[in-house]
Amino acid sequence: MPGVTSDVLEANDRFYAAFNNHDFEAMDALWATSVEVACVHPGWMRLAGREEVMASWAAILRNPDQSRLVPGDARVVFTGASAVVHCREFVAGTPLVATNIFVREEDGAWRLIHHHSSPVMSASS
Amino acid sequence: MPGVTSDVLEANDRFYAAFNNHDFEAMDALWATSVEVACVHPGWMRLAGREEVMASWAAILRNPDQSRLVPGDARVVFTGASAVVHCREFVAGTPLVATNIFVREEDGAWRLIHHHSSPVMSASS
Repeated sequence: MPGVTSDVLEANDRFYAAFNNHDFEAMDALWATSVEVACVHPGWMRLAGREEVMASWAAILRNPDQSRLVPGDARVVFTGASAVVHCREFVAGTPLVATNIFVREEDGAWRLIHHHSSPVMSASS
Repeated sequence: MPGVTSDVLEANDRFYAAFNNHDFEAMDALWATSVEVACVHPGWMRLAGREEVMASWAAILRNPDQSRLVPGDARVVFTGASAVVHCREFVAGTPLVATNIFVREEDGAWRLIHHHSSPVMSASS
């Protein structure tokens, strides 16, 4: 069953919606349980394992002053059972770039196994 | 044919060896041709497509003052035909964190389809 780009982009959009709605339950439901997950928030070290990653999201989403994250220009690359999305992000006018890796789990849903977001500090490309 | 962690870590090591040896040919051979590749250098915007990505490596590797990149603490997660490696990097004492995504191509070699490296700016984890 080949991956459908729109399904992955929809999962990617749900990730940003969960973020912007401060919706921890939706965020938690979006992260895979079948694979060890990892996450790199902008400027942070890598977080590995579901417990550590979800604790970071809980802290971020409970911050009422957290700015919205506006995604754009997403591209999807399929690699068998996984899909890599890379996109731009803007937070309070600051450009970021993100790598989001999804796997399709047993119930057919695409879920995140990896999020890596980092600030853009040069004008390159 | 399940992936073998040591094969992927070896490919990951070859990536850093190619970087530290300023060996463009080895770097070029390490990047996939079967899938659209992408790359995020620290502080850069995303580069997409083999031409753009390899042009960036050519420029970086021809810089005689480029500091060595020392990888460490690599973890591998398999997602079917692809493997995600996340690791630390140190360049001239500065900590970075990297996401490297490999696919196994037809000849059995693991090749990069995605590299995302970013600076660590906080003490988090």
